[in-house]
Amino acid sequence: MSIAPRKQHDRLSLSTAFASTRAETEQRCQTLAIEDYQLQSMPDCSPPKWHLAHSTWFFETFVLAPHVPGFRPFHERFGYLFNSYYDAIGDRWPRVQRGLLSRPTVAEVYDYRRAVDEQILALIDTVDEPALQLIASVIELGWNHEQQHQELLVTDVKHAFGMNPLRPIYSLDAGNPQGDDAPMQWQSFPAGLRKLGRAGGGFAFDNEGPPHDVYLRDFQIATRPVSHGEYLNFIEDGGYERPVFWLSDGWAAVRNDCWVAPLYWERGKEGWSIFTLQGMKPIAAHEPVCHISFYEADAYARWAGARLPTEFEWETAGISGRTFSRGDVWVWTASPYTAYPGFRPAAGAVGEYNGKFMCNQMVLRGGSLATPAGHTRPTYRNFFPPDARWQFSGLQLAKDGAA
Amino acid sequence: MSIAPRKQHDRLSLSTAFASTRAETEQRCQTLAIEDYQLQSMPDCSPPKWHLAHSTWFFETFVLAPHVPGFRPFHERFGYLFNSYYDAIGDRWPRVQRGLLSRPTVAEVYDYRRAVDEQILALIDTVDEPALQLIASVIELGWNHEQQHQELLVTDVKHAFGMNPLRPIYSLDAGNPQGDDAPMQWQSFPAGLRKLGRAGGGFAFDNEGPPHDVYLRDFQIATRPVSHGEYLNFIEDGGYERPVFWLSDGWAAVRNDCWVAPLYWERGKEGWSIFTLQGMKPIAAHEPVCHISFYEADAYARWAGARLPTEFEWETAGISGRTFSRGDVWVWTASPYTAYPGFRPAAGAVGEYNGKFMCNQMVLRGGSLATPAGHTRPTYRNFFPPDARWQFSGLQLAKDGAA
Amino acid sequence: MSIAPRKQHDRLSLSTAFASTRAETEQRCQTLAIEDYQLQSMPDCSPPKWHLAHSTWFFETFVLAPHVPGFRPFHERFGYLFNSYYDAIGDRWPRVQRGLLSRPTVAEVYDYRRAVDEQILALIDTVDEPALQLIASVIELGWNHEQQHQELLVTDVKHAFGMNPLRPIYSLDAGNPQGDDAPMQWQSFPAGLRKLGRAGGGFAFDNEGPPHDVYLRDFQIATRPVSHGEYLNFIEDGGYERPVFWLSDGWAAVRNDCWVAPLYWERGKEGWSIFTLQGMKPIAAHEPVCHISFYEADAYARWAGARLPTEFEWETAGISGRTFSRGDVWVWTASPYTAYPGFRPAAGAVGEYNGKFMCNQMVLRGGSLATPAGHTRPTYRNFFPPDARWQFSGLQLAKDGAA
Amino acid sequence: MSIAPRKQHDRLSLSTAFASTRAETEQRCQTLAIEDYQLQSMPDCSPPKWHLAHSTWFFETFVLAPHVPGFRPFHERFGYLFNSYYDAIGDRWPRVQRGLLSRPTVAEVYDYRRAVDEQILALIDTVDEPALQLIASVIELGWNHEQQHQELLVTDVKHAFGMNPLRPIYSLDAGNPQGDDAPMQWQSFPAGLRKLGRAGGGFAFDNEGPPHDVYLRDFQIATRPVSHGEYLNFIEDGGYERPVFWLSDGWAAVRNDCWVAPLYWERGKEGWSIFTLQGMKPIAAHEPVCHISFYEADAYARWAGARLPTEFEWETAGISGRTFSRGDVWVWTASPYTAYPGFRPAAGAVGEYNGKFMCNQMVLRGGSLATPAGHTRPTYRNFFPPDARWQFSGLQLAKDGAA
Repeated sequence: MSIAPRKQHDRLSLSTAFASTRAETEQRCQTLAIEDYQLQSMPDCSPPKWHLAHSTWFFETFVLAPHVPGFRPFHERFGYLFNSYYDAIGDRWPRVQRGLLSRPTVAEVYDYRRAVDEQILALIDTVDEPALQLIASVIELGWNHEQQHQELLVTDVKHAFGMNPLRPIYSLDAGNPQGDDAPMQWQSFPAGLRKLGRAGGGFAFDNEGPPHDVYLRDFQIATRPVSHGEYLNFIEDGGYERPVFWLSDGWAAVRNDCWVAPLYWERGKEGWSIFTLQGMKPIAAHEPVCHISFYEADAYARWAGARLPTEFEWETAGISGRTFSRGDVWVWTASPYTAYPGFRPAAGAVGEYNGKFMCNQMVLRGGSLATPAGHTRPTYRNFFPPDARWQFSGLQLAKDGAA
Repeated sequence: MSIAPRKQHDRLSLSTAFASTRAETEQRCQTLAIEDYQLQSMPDCSPPKWHLAHSTWFFETFVLAPHVPGFRPFHERFGYLFNSYYDAIGDRWPRVQRGLLSRPTVAEVYDYRRAVDEQILALIDTVDEPALQLIASVIELGWNHEQQHQELLVTDVKHAFGMNPLRPIYSLDAGNPQGDDAPMQWQSFPAGLRKLGRAGGGFAFDNEGPPHDVYLRDFQIATRPVSHGEYLNFIEDGGYERPVFWLSDGWAAVRNDCWVAPLYWERGKEGWSIFTLQGMKPIAAHEPVCHISFYEADAYARWAGARLPTEFEWETAGISGRTFSRGDVWVWTASPYTAYPGFRPAAGAVGEYNGKFMCNQMVLRGGSLATPAGHTRPTYRNFFPPDARWQFSGLQLAKDGAA
Repeated sequence: MSIAPRKQHDRLSLSTAFASTRAETEQRCQTLAIEDYQLQSMPDCSPPKWHLAHSTWFFETFVLAPHVPGFRPFHERFGYLFNSYYDAIGDRWPRVQRGLLSRPTVAEVYDYRRAVDEQILALIDTVDEPALQLIASVIELGWNHEQQHQELLVTDVKHAFGMNPLRPIYSLDAGNPQGDDAPMQWQSFPAGLRKLGRAGGGFAFDNEGPPHDVYLRDFQIATRPVSHGEYLNFIEDGGYERPVFWLSDGWAAVRNDCWVAPLYWERGKEGWSIFTLQGMKPIAAHEPVCHISFYEADAYARWAGARLPTEFEWETAGISGRTFSRGDVWVWTASPYTAYPGFRPAAGAVGEYNGKFMCNQMVLRGGSLATPAGHTRPTYRNFFPPDARWQFSGLQLAKDGAA
Repeated sequence: MSIAPRKQHDRLSLSTAFASTRAETEQRCQTLAIEDYQLQSMPDCSPPKWHLAHSTWFFETFVLAPHVPGFRPFHERFGYLFNSYYDAIGDRWPRVQRGLLSRPTVAEVYDYRRAVDEQILALIDTVDEPALQLIASVIELGWNHEQQHQELLVTDVKHAFGMNPLRPIYSLDAGNPQGDDAPMQWQSFPAGLRKLGRAGGGFAFDNEGPPHDVYLRDFQIATRPVSHGEYLNFIEDGGYERPVFWLSDGWAAVRNDCWVAPLYWERGKEGWSIFTLQGMKPIAAHEPVCHISFYEADAYARWAGARLPTEFEWETAGISGRTFSRGDVWVWTASPYTAYPGFRPAAGAVGEYNGKFMCNQMVLRGGSLATPAGHTRPTYRNFFPPDARWQFSGLQLAKDGAA
């Protein structure tokens, strides 16, 4: 799964990283009522309880099952219930019905986590050294996988809360995008052949590599993402009413789904407000626009006389350190999600991790306030279908030519 | 709503009946986990939490709001969330999304119940005598309404549990249909004009009257419902494979929904077993067949060389006391649900109770093990669409002619 | 199929009736372009070509196949293509895809008709007398069946033309409902037991009998159907905006399908106009309202402080000759379509004719300008789902009590 | 629209090319019955009549309307009926209902073609020289547009005929892919920066440029497309039953749409046969496999231990002349359809031609037996959604590394 060159794992740092990731996931559930754990507000979202159980199932299936002698699963049906999409592992409970499982209860799922945690930590402590190196890379993949679910857990709860007329508050302490008051500026990058993709130096997902050469023309990229204030100009200029700005599929989405603004925007008597993790609040002009689809990002860019950056342009800029990269919002790129030249997925079920989704999705780069720290790196490739809006997704402009 | 002639209500019996109904509803939730309260496994079902809140909303809206001076609702949005279908009251939360509301929590809904209970009981105690008689009939309607939701609460939980691969147990103490080992026999009733429908003598729903004359020909009706054993013969004779037995819409349902047996039947290596409120158990031949649609009831009857009774034939037999009426299962009748001659719904929103559903549904008569005691009466008209299978619905045969 | 007592058929009258029915069907296609023959504008409609072929297949399958020695079908696949719903006959082409068959061509379908016509006429001429009586009743059923398709052919073409922006004209000679300028009046009928249903005296469909006793209370029925002018008052009084008038399923249809007026009504600058078989024309106040669903008929009646007649009340009035019965529009009754007491369908595939549709439909009585002459009789039971609007369906009011 | 540098058009060659394209379109309809012209067997297909009219509307709208003084459209509603997707032009008849328009008739559509042909030819003859150069490029675009519809006309008729149980024959003279008996071989291409995309030299669509640099690694590409015989090995090895070969969305398509072989394959007692433009015929092992989706192409490649070429690899090979390029079948590439660096669509409605579809589609390269001659060129970019199977689409393998 990982494309990093093998490094030596020591038991203590392995245990610590594992345990702290597991704790962080549960920390993100601290403000939830039992009832909230079961919410699935649309097929693309999963209930918090499912995220808790699925990330546990991953460790149970890929670490404990092959490495613990006489392994017995915690519950014989959990494999069926909490497999997400690993076809090689067998049948699974339909994704759209994840919210219909009141049992196992939340308490039982936490028991499941405890039981697997203990076994993993015991395994790390007791396994012999050669086997340790063998399982360490899967455990490392497992916590990186769980970290991805940490972000989804937050976006999925936000979506479910956002449709409840009571507009529940996730947490008053949840962060907010800070945004940037400074005017947007352009950074120029000269044409040339660039070596992009992850070459080593710590964990990375397989889809971040292999490193490869890409020829880029002269381009410029904005120093920061587009802000609420700028996006409002697009709306007020008829952005959602004029097909000329839109891709054909995007315009169909606007019409069929009655989009008139980003997700979570509500128009009231005193103007727009937005639903956030801290409840409703008035719109702040300098914050980055968020919860827009690729189609909206693309339409805005066309309206603005610019375009979206390719993922290669964004990575070039990201590496340079000359543009915004704080992790307020992911930004949609112009790049469909495909394999890098020479990409080969890992053997076995773990190989289903990334490769089989390389169709019908667009790459996002950057990271958001809900992204675990280590995942905000220049080579990280996030990907979602072009109509997805419930992620913390914004945009950053680019254009052709030298300054 | 009620068609009963006005009777005098005294404060004590009113309070007692109200309180005991409210307690019984909560009693039926005693074995539920918090997570279970939120389950909505199909659009026709509602979560237990919703049943608890909606039946409370009914009292709040139709008793407290018009009769408590300076009335303030418990929560300003609960009217929107817990109105079921009263168009005259205003907009409401979409039925199919009742399972998506994690808030209010279960505890908050119980608080809501407590608050309304107290106000109702206080109102009964303190209102002056003329007003008492005014509100008493609405309170009586309200607890009869809540009793209807008591049965739905059980059938809805059963449906949700029945689709969970863990097959949770609702209660080991839940009753079972007792059935009858005796061979089925026919009871004959001679032709003639009969006065049917409720004429008074205690509470009844508006759709049970007015009393009216119906001419019936000679007919015979079975002494008991069709049993599992008898129904198995139908299955084994290709009942679900031969269109000749089926109504056109019924055959379409068989094909589209892949029906091969009643709902909750599972075929294993040792034959059929069924999912019950006590979990899975092997089929018992003498128990009445249950969880069949009108289409299946009608097809079975045609296969058996008989037919379903009209609701008027069933009522005639029911009044006579000569046929089974223990309340094991509701039985589908051949009668579409329509207004009796001279029927007029009550004025105002309460008038939406029954009349507006008099289309596209079939009448069931009798009662089930989940039916509150008083509702098992000869004139009670239950009604569901012809493809509904999640109710405790069976069938009882009839045929033309004298013995 | 027929419930009439056996009568003697003579060869000449049989041939004549057969041939004239066949000619009338083709006469109704005289103004069609080849392209029109293939139109299927919604699943409930069938292409004219299909009506031509299916009615021919009926004769081929139920008369020629069993009675012609060495019978060979005209085309081996036509049985598959042109069976409508006779499950006992075998598989069939999906109804919703009838418009997708460009082949056989229109010319080939006319060839099919010619070939079957010749064989039927030859059979009538040459069969011996006992066999003649045997086939005569099936032939008679066949032409009555074809006459039903004559009306459907017109309503289906009207629907297809009605959605074409060019609004093609079916025929300038097509009749129009004449309507009635006289004010509506009530005719009273006293309570009592009435013998209704067809008892003999010529051909009738099986669902028109058996004759049976029905007890009716005092009722009154309008002398004529509701007119355009009267219905406009309902619209202008907010009829389509106030849920209080509507059945629950009806109100759902109003909202989901955006009904604001009967089918084929268009609001322009100079008021309403309607699409007719002669193209667009302004609305005429005295004409009967047409192309409304059962839901609209029922809502209008409630708005008007009246109700729809049961089919038994209508039949009582129809027999009396004291009310309008010219055949301008069918009128929706309050009666769901069910079997009369003692009804038994014919044996074999022909028995699928009526009985298996006795669910989820409402009875209409009367006849329309597109109804073949003989079918406008007091006992004729037409039936359609309650949301159907493309038939020539209107309404006639009734109410309880003596004058 | 065209990216070619301006060339001088002379009146004669312009008229000739225009007229011969128009004639070729009609030639492709020569074997159709009137009834066939109206077929629309799925939303993605259009009726032949629509192709005939729409390609005419293109000339009328983009050439005649702006350049003929006092222009009057042939029919005021044809703009509404025959606009395909040009939002800037206005509303249009819904795509899915193109098959429901019996009027205008086929004869009227040919009249429309005649009328527009005459006006275009007259315009070419009479316009002054500066204006000639202005309209010439639009006319050239128009006939290239019409040529694209020539291929669609054939694929759409094939799809409609393929679902008719009578399996009509389009034409006994229709070509067949010839295939290649020789074993597949690999051609190697060395790594390096390559200039790809159309740089001039005759008409090209805007999406074929601008020319730009692409860095390619060492790769090898098959000398010919995958054959029926090879693809059968994939099927017989469980290709459609083993998720390991499939993209996630591809596997979902396999399961939901019950794919077990390419479109038009039928399994009989004597093995597979396929539906062709000449009717059913047994499968020929050496012919290229056709009518597969991108998902199937991708799965086959993974099964074969290879991959699909990118469009840039294919173009490199195509330019070299060292691989098959006869135009038997289009081949799916691994490249999502996006804009080339520096791409800018033309201004105005004509600019909607290609750019707005650059999402959710995959690029195909090559050409098929139904492709008009000039369109089979190395830079031509065809594109369809990854689940499309009704085009003449096959695959050609590629792999990494030097020979």
